[in-house]
Amino acid sequence: MVKGNKYGTHRVIEPKGTLPQPALKISNDMNIFDNEILINVDYLNIDSASFTQLKEEARGDLEEIKSKILEIVQERGKMQNPVTGSGGMLIGKVESIGIELQDKIDLNVGDKIASLVSLSLTPLKIERILNINPDIDRVEIKGKAILFESGIYAKLPEDMENTLALAALDVAGAPAQVKNLVKEGDTVLILGATGKSGLMCSYMAKKMAGNEGKIIGQARNEARADFLRETKFCHEIIIADVLKPTNVLEETLKVNSGKEVDIAINCLSISNSELSSILPVRDKGVVYFFSMATSFTKAALGAEGIGKDVTMIIGNGYTKNHAQITLDLLRESEVLRNIFQKKYII
Amino acid sequence: MVKGNKYGTHRVIEPKGTLPQPALKISNDMNIFDNEILINVDYLNIDSASFTQLKEEARGDLEEIKSKILEIVQERGKMQNPVTGSGGMLIGKVESIGIELQDKIDLNVGDKIASLVSLSLTPLKIERILNINPDIDRVEIKGKAILFESGIYAKLPEDMENTLALAALDVAGAPAQVKNLVKEGDTVLILGATGKSGLMCSYMAKKMAGNEGKIIGQARNEARADFLRETKFCHEIIIADVLKPTNVLEETLKVNSGKEVDIAINCLSISNSELSSILPVRDKGVVYFFSMATSFTKAALGAEGIGKDVTMIIGNGYTKNHAQITLDLLRESEVLRNIFQKKYII
Repeated sequence: MVKGNKYGTHRVIEPKGTLPQPALKISNDMNIFDNEILINVDYLNIDSASFTQLKEEARGDLEEIKSKILEIVQERGKMQNPVTGSGGMLIGKVESIGIELQDKIDLNVGDKIASLVSLSLTPLKIERILNINPDIDRVEIKGKAILFESGIYAKLPEDMENTLALAALDVAGAPAQVKNLVKEGDTVLILGATGKSGLMCSYMAKKMAGNEGKIIGQARNEARADFLRETKFCHEIIIADVLKPTNVLEETLKVNSGKEVDIAINCLSISNSELSSILPVRDKGVVYFFSMATSFTKAALGAEGIGKDVTMIIGNGYTKNHAQITLDLLRESEVLRNIFQKKYII
Repeated sequence: MVKGNKYGTHRVIEPKGTLPQPALKISNDMNIFDNEILINVDYLNIDSASFTQLKEEARGDLEEIKSKILEIVQERGKMQNPVTGSGGMLIGKVESIGIELQDKIDLNVGDKIASLVSLSLTPLKIERILNINPDIDRVEIKGKAILFESGIYAKLPEDMENTLALAALDVAGAPAQVKNLVKEGDTVLILGATGKSGLMCSYMAKKMAGNEGKIIGQARNEARADFLRETKFCHEIIIADVLKPTNVLEETLKVNSGKEVDIAINCLSISNSELSSILPVRDKGVVYFFSMATSFTKAALGAEGIGKDVTMIIGNGYTKNHAQITLDLLRESEVLRNIFQKKYII
């Protein structure tokens, strides 16, 4: 074979010139190029928005959902819901590795992996659907898929359940970026500190900020604050309404000797919390938006409106080694691991 | 008097707890607090979206537009269009400066300034509307306004026409942030290099990157490329379709010895150009989105989809000294000044 494009554009059938994700149809020919990886797929974890749509369209009939999935993959060469545009991820074993990649990557034939790029851009061929578990949006199949050279994945660790690893990998980008962002001695405000990515970020931020640093976690009520207090992931905990920027600012100043923070990290999943993230940060500080509910214009105009010279960063789902970094947190902290086991296993 | 809140929350009447911008009604009592500035207003430059709406509602009748503006300011205490939510900016002379600010700011009574925060958050009282120039969305008034401690403004320079200064100040955030972002020796791709902010950013980037750096400007066709070539603001110029990320990548690699760039700056005003900005950037590089058409989720998911470890920054309309930095570019470059005089004067 020959070398394909790093991003998989050599497999785009229609329309030409686009990347595999926006493409309507890609090639799912399972003969791999020299820089591709062939996966023997065990499960598809369909994205929740996509699965809900399929269920509704099929009025809950599992056989109809099966037909619809087969039809989509047949037509598009990938499992991308045409209504929602979204995909999901897959779990499988490495069947073969293109010759160009063999010495470059830390992966062997037989390794069990989870793909961390969306199914919406992953060439997939389904031979048979074995089972559907609608409670966890999981589809067991006999089939194969291909990862491009730029495709990211995580080896599923031997020392923890797959389900636990997957729950953590789902938010892997956040703690890995916090690791790069937070420096020793920083004061960091975490909005939504009691949620899945918020807990990970709080733990990582405390580790990076060290003894001279201070982590302030925001919770929305007394019960959530108590829960967060028990984890000991934050030095200070504030209860504040994230839809009221001045409330967040005031509560932050109270626990930080009247000073603004160096960094704010937005881990919320609700809209209109941009200003609550920007307002408590000092001039030349950093606001990191991990929330997918963030509005670009509200952030840009919000900062201008209050004359705040802060650097605002869009949370990137990918950072180098993010899977490893995140799984290591679960190994390191029993508290974190227990919470994930209790609350987030899918 | 007493000291008010830095962001003007002391003037919010309804609803309590919000900032002046989202507030429905703020106090336009013209007795200033100790950290406010009183402006004798000459002109309002109504935001274009707002003015268009007012014109349509009044079916072009200038007297009706006048009544509507008076009514809005009467009701809200600020000139914020209730339909579009937007404001605009004002030009006027400093009438008095609160005692707390007198030694802190570089402003004297009598200075002519433009406000760089939106009218949508600026307390305003109109005594009389003198004239409306609907061609340039400009309203001449007799009235007063107040700037908060956090309010940003620019002294209008003596050495250039107000109209020229205003055209530049409109995009002041971009070149000022490029100044902080670009280091000596960087290779920088400017998307939309032939537009208003693109030209400013190209010029500034070339200056900061120095002799060892390389600025690559993107134009959409041969005519625009020729125009850009004449400015000499870029080392290389590519013609590429920003809706085709691989096209942008390929053209960039061609003029950069096959290498990805360190920084990409998006100065476009069209949607769906996120991936075209991310794809040509090296791992650990920076993507700076100045375009207000940027989608947060498309950027976040786009980078993840292609496994790119880049830092993506939301363009902040405000950076310290941005007005000064930007006006200085017009003073420095006759080419830039001539283009602005010809094309962008409002």
